[in-house]
Amino acid sequence: MSSTFGTLFRVTTFGESHGPGVGVVVDGMPPGITVDPGAIQRELDRRRPGQSAITSPRREADQVEILSGVFEGVTLGTPIAMLVRNRDARPEDYEALRDVFRPGHADYAYQRKYGVRDHRGGGRASGRETIGRVAAGALARAALATVHVAIVGGTVQVGEVRALCRDWDEAGKNLVRCPDTDAAAAMVRAIEAAREAKDSVGGVVEVVGCGVPAGWGDPVMDKLDARLGAAMLSIPAVKGVEIGDGFGLAARRGSESNDVLEQGRFRTNFGGGISGGISTGAEIVVRLAVRPASSIGLPQTAATSDGGTRTITVGGRHDPCICPRVVPVAEAMMAIVLADAWLRQRALRGGDGR
Amino acid sequence: MSSTFGTLFRVTTFGESHGPGVGVVVDGMPPGITVDPGAIQRELDRRRPGQSAITSPRREADQVEILSGVFEGVTLGTPIAMLVRNRDARPEDYEALRDVFRPGHADYAYQRKYGVRDHRGGGRASGRETIGRVAAGALARAALATVHVAIVGGTVQVGEVRALCRDWDEAGKNLVRCPDTDAAAAMVRAIEAAREAKDSVGGVVEVVGCGVPAGWGDPVMDKLDARLGAAMLSIPAVKGVEIGDGFGLAARRGSESNDVLEQGRFRTNFGGGISGGISTGAEIVVRLAVRPASSIGLPQTAATSDGGTRTITVGGRHDPCICPRVVPVAEAMMAIVLADAWLRQRALRGGDGR
Amino acid sequence: MSSTFGTLFRVTTFGESHGPGVGVVVDGMPPGITVDPGAIQRELDRRRPGQSAITSPRREADQVEILSGVFEGVTLGTPIAMLVRNRDARPEDYEALRDVFRPGHADYAYQRKYGVRDHRGGGRASGRETIGRVAAGALARAALATVHVAIVGGTVQVGEVRALCRDWDEAGKNLVRCPDTDAAAAMVRAIEAAREAKDSVGGVVEVVGCGVPAGWGDPVMDKLDARLGAAMLSIPAVKGVEIGDGFGLAARRGSESNDVLEQGRFRTNFGGGISGGISTGAEIVVRLAVRPASSIGLPQTAATSDGGTRTITVGGRHDPCICPRVVPVAEAMMAIVLADAWLRQRALRGGDGR
Amino acid sequence: MSSTFGTLFRVTTFGESHGPGVGVVVDGMPPGITVDPGAIQRELDRRRPGQSAITSPRREADQVEILSGVFEGVTLGTPIAMLVRNRDARPEDYEALRDVFRPGHADYAYQRKYGVRDHRGGGRASGRETIGRVAAGALARAALATVHVAIVGGTVQVGEVRALCRDWDEAGKNLVRCPDTDAAAAMVRAIEAAREAKDSVGGVVEVVGCGVPAGWGDPVMDKLDARLGAAMLSIPAVKGVEIGDGFGLAARRGSESNDVLEQGRFRTNFGGGISGGISTGAEIVVRLAVRPASSIGLPQTAATSDGGTRTITVGGRHDPCICPRVVPVAEAMMAIVLADAWLRQRALRGGDGR
Repeated sequence: MSSTFGTLFRVTTFGESHGPGVGVVVDGMPPGITVDPGAIQRELDRRRPGQSAITSPRREADQVEILSGVFEGVTLGTPIAMLVRNRDARPEDYEALRDVFRPGHADYAYQRKYGVRDHRGGGRASGRETIGRVAAGALARAALATVHVAIVGGTVQVGEVRALCRDWDEAGKNLVRCPDTDAAAAMVRAIEAAREAKDSVGGVVEVVGCGVPAGWGDPVMDKLDARLGAAMLSIPAVKGVEIGDGFGLAARRGSESNDVLEQGRFRTNFGGGISGGISTGAEIVVRLAVRPASSIGLPQTAATSDGGTRTITVGGRHDPCICPRVVPVAEAMMAIVLADAWLRQRALRGGDGR
Repeated sequence: MSSTFGTLFRVTTFGESHGPGVGVVVDGMPPGITVDPGAIQRELDRRRPGQSAITSPRREADQVEILSGVFEGVTLGTPIAMLVRNRDARPEDYEALRDVFRPGHADYAYQRKYGVRDHRGGGRASGRETIGRVAAGALARAALATVHVAIVGGTVQVGEVRALCRDWDEAGKNLVRCPDTDAAAAMVRAIEAAREAKDSVGGVVEVVGCGVPAGWGDPVMDKLDARLGAAMLSIPAVKGVEIGDGFGLAARRGSESNDVLEQGRFRTNFGGGISGGISTGAEIVVRLAVRPASSIGLPQTAATSDGGTRTITVGGRHDPCICPRVVPVAEAMMAIVLADAWLRQRALRGGDGR
Repeated sequence: MSSTFGTLFRVTTFGESHGPGVGVVVDGMPPGITVDPGAIQRELDRRRPGQSAITSPRREADQVEILSGVFEGVTLGTPIAMLVRNRDARPEDYEALRDVFRPGHADYAYQRKYGVRDHRGGGRASGRETIGRVAAGALARAALATVHVAIVGGTVQVGEVRALCRDWDEAGKNLVRCPDTDAAAAMVRAIEAAREAKDSVGGVVEVVGCGVPAGWGDPVMDKLDARLGAAMLSIPAVKGVEIGDGFGLAARRGSESNDVLEQGRFRTNFGGGISGGISTGAEIVVRLAVRPASSIGLPQTAATSDGGTRTITVGGRHDPCICPRVVPVAEAMMAIVLADAWLRQRALRGGDGR
Repeated sequence: MSSTFGTLFRVTTFGESHGPGVGVVVDGMPPGITVDPGAIQRELDRRRPGQSAITSPRREADQVEILSGVFEGVTLGTPIAMLVRNRDARPEDYEALRDVFRPGHADYAYQRKYGVRDHRGGGRASGRETIGRVAAGALARAALATVHVAIVGGTVQVGEVRALCRDWDEAGKNLVRCPDTDAAAAMVRAIEAAREAKDSVGGVVEVVGCGVPAGWGDPVMDKLDARLGAAMLSIPAVKGVEIGDGFGLAARRGSESNDVLEQGRFRTNFGGGISGGISTGAEIVVRLAVRPASSIGLPQTAATSDGGTRTITVGGRHDPCICPRVVPVAEAMMAIVLADAWLRQRALRGGDGR
């Protein structure tokens, strides 16, 4: 039951990295919404490996096929299943790792949990699982667009390099998807330095929900903060989440942290657009801590299934920094959370949920 | 549907701050477990207002009554309902605020979401809602104790003051529940300074799960990180969560971040005891960013329901720093998450879930 | 997790027959709906024991207390908890049955499932659990009334006596709640005959949803038939459910079973107002098979916990036919199912769900 | 969210009758269980059209492809997605029906619910949706086999013809899957008579769970009766369910209805192996009322989307009696319910769930 996210806009992903394919079933997509397969494909292309000099060279076309739920270009309100076949799977690359638990990877944890695992490329723990999320997120965006909600995002930190401004249009123009052009160049250098050192580097991704009206999100347990937190922390490699000023608020006083409402607008947005778990009408702002990719070229000590250790170096096709590819995934997860919150608000109050 | 947390160990809280009472229904507690009402009460006493010089002076005995699910001192496997009556409710204190949206509080968001609200003390958004969580957490702890899992926690930052060590026994001995005695004294001073300034101050709480075996937590969407993140971000005033080194990992390289397994033990715990969403056998470490309490004595501009503004000063019975009282709530939420993960692992593999 | 029903209108009951009390938490009730405590109490009074010559003489006032979620007479959109204290509990009556598994009762099954049980009056398996359902159903009715949906019901069979017509106003006027006055008299005689024989007798209850617009109910797995079936079969003593002509359709041909639509109305209603799991705009018709009450005065062989048997006769305070008291419970469950379906349709399509 | 069934063994189907394909995702299948693709295919073949003289001649190979969750022949504990392509789809057959609501079909209800529909062969309401259930059921059976639970079933009534005995081995040998050889012949004649009359005929299917230990099923709302009821009533064309003697109990007295336990075994099984919603160790017995197939060759009046009516005759490729093909679907749904109950009992008590 662990591969499903959402209550009313419900996303279930499936698939292993080197099995026949990966995909998703989206149940709860409202009917009558036009679906542009090209828009779904464009989101997948943003996530795809091999798209630039600083991402993994694994070659996957990641062509999506819609199996159900769309008829004559329009959603039916029934489950929408989407499938992406794995093409450039090279399971033989992993044969040597069948009995090895790679450091930083989930190999050991999976083995302990399930007693069995698909050792090829992380199996289900692979980042390829996020293909289904991105495809589902594209549908969520299409649904949200009908109520004028949009999502942007980008990489705001790589290693020690931080973005100092947020120009989201710029984020679409550079390799790291950074909303600060100057920082972007420094980030690319930091990533290349990590790759040359046969190492990887972490970072921070920020996503922003625009146009969300006041009133979305369900207290107490399903606060928008909690749903967004769960969504982001379910993405591989994410180990921290903050809403609005997040950890920055810990060092402040109340008089510096309370967002003041005036004339129906908030003068500040310390709380990231969420108060009491409910959207306030301000921008929804979430940041994710992304750990450095676990696969690095440097020699590492790895445990083996017979209780010993072995020195391994992980070969070629990996990302020195996964932040640029996390961006579309994080955006997709925010879209899924917001689509769900929208439908829940419609259920609660009727009308159009605004 | 928003007041329920958990899949198999399922907690539903209810109640407003100044209504008849607050409480919880716990469904999924395994049968045959001895329940010590005193242990539940002790946890509630740790959360209770009025317990020390640095907490709210609201006087509530917070006496819990078990309404169901326990027979002759033992759990039946049926829902356990627990009720705490509100005693020191002073709804008249809030009459003047009926049409005011207090800065930093959820008043405005609730009004926009529901079109109606209980304005008295935040109603459902009040910290009193967490009473039910703490009572449920006490049951979760009793369940986890049967498999030798325990939870500790404390305040590790107040304002700019940070704990430099983790001596969890010490955390029980000082007013701020800080695991570093020296830092504790400085934290108390920081809190008193905030109070004297008619202000409040934020902080960071850390909770640690001890004795959790490898294999708990359900990828993909219900990763232990995600469940813990949701649990913590559902606590009032929490605006950030990190697992293990969290945001610290963003600035590092992979070679400094991969936990290396040797002889069945991890030499480091950068990942906070979770890999691929599954427990690794190391300690589960989570930190929460707690924003400064919204209620402060300084004059603030508040919007009113007729579209205007008013200057308000929030009177008396509030906490200048809620971290010490968040500690038992965060521990309870971790207990609830882990109890759920334990039962899910039993479902998946049978046996005792270890 | 087994005591919760519903997705958006979510009902969780708690309580044992001879514990401190029984109750319910309703989460998902829309905000802004006027709550009449008298209306809730009236539904509980219809379910209450001791209300007539043909029901159990256990004396319970069954006074309900609303603990949360209602403010100044109006729903807040937050969980509504309601509590009924057990008053006329006589646990000592059951001491002799501590080690006995009464025939027809769930004693044995509970013992095998949980390894422990509250033997007093069936504990959680008691019909008293349905108090929470009826209270929740009263709220569901209030919600449905805002969209002009109402529910009626009655006893349509007792033993071999069947109602031949459906005059729902009449159902409120006789002891068995039968919509056929002539049959009602015969049903009362059948019940009295069973009681005189120290026995009990079964029957059939029918509930009808009026005013339900076309379009409610969610295929595929949550068809309205399936939700109603689950709701009814979760009521103690119910062992069968049929929608519309139900088992009668098994003996017929298609040409005699297809409801024909003309001018926006169905000429017939063989399908009980549901097609493909979705309401058609016709009346929703459900019938429940109610087994005879298990508690009878005749001597019976009962197994004991040490593996032997004992002859028992079950004393006094039981119903010879529970159908009249099942009626308000079945109506409540239909209201809960329809309220949930309504909210889900609002989520799916927006507007008012019609 | 309406296409998912189950809590721990969770089945989500997708697909329309004349879209690219139909399928299922099974999440919660325990790891380490050997999967025989041939066994899954055999179940699908039992459900397949065109398998005998009395079923629809639509030709579908219904070849299943496993997309995920199985590695080297063994389940991984991750979601198992399975896909069956639609081959013999003839959407053009349905062009004339684009604006027609066929009597007895869900066309009108879907249109009213969603505002849009796939008119080709019923779209999502088609019996082809059950392919996913049958494939999932095959996995559930494999899981249950590890604890020695098996499921059998058959047609026990067609029109007025009833099976008088239950020889489940026989059920596999005749076209109608009737456990009474003599009745089987009469049933075939009844079906052929209906077909010759360009009509269809209803019936009753019975499924039996063998080897289920005492203790499965979760009161109060998730009673085994309720879960089985929901499962069966979610199958297209099923309009009634009874557990054990079901509606027969309505006419009886308690002294004739209480199952008596002696020496750990029940002498009778009026309750269908379920007491208080929990399995008793006796056989689980469920019967389903199956309405006559809606598609008949006789001329019928059908409403059209412009508010008028039209006389239609439904052409060729339909089943005169769907009971034989409902049998594997009902067995699959029982398997899914029982697998879920098994896992929940493991969660509750640990061990192997027995």
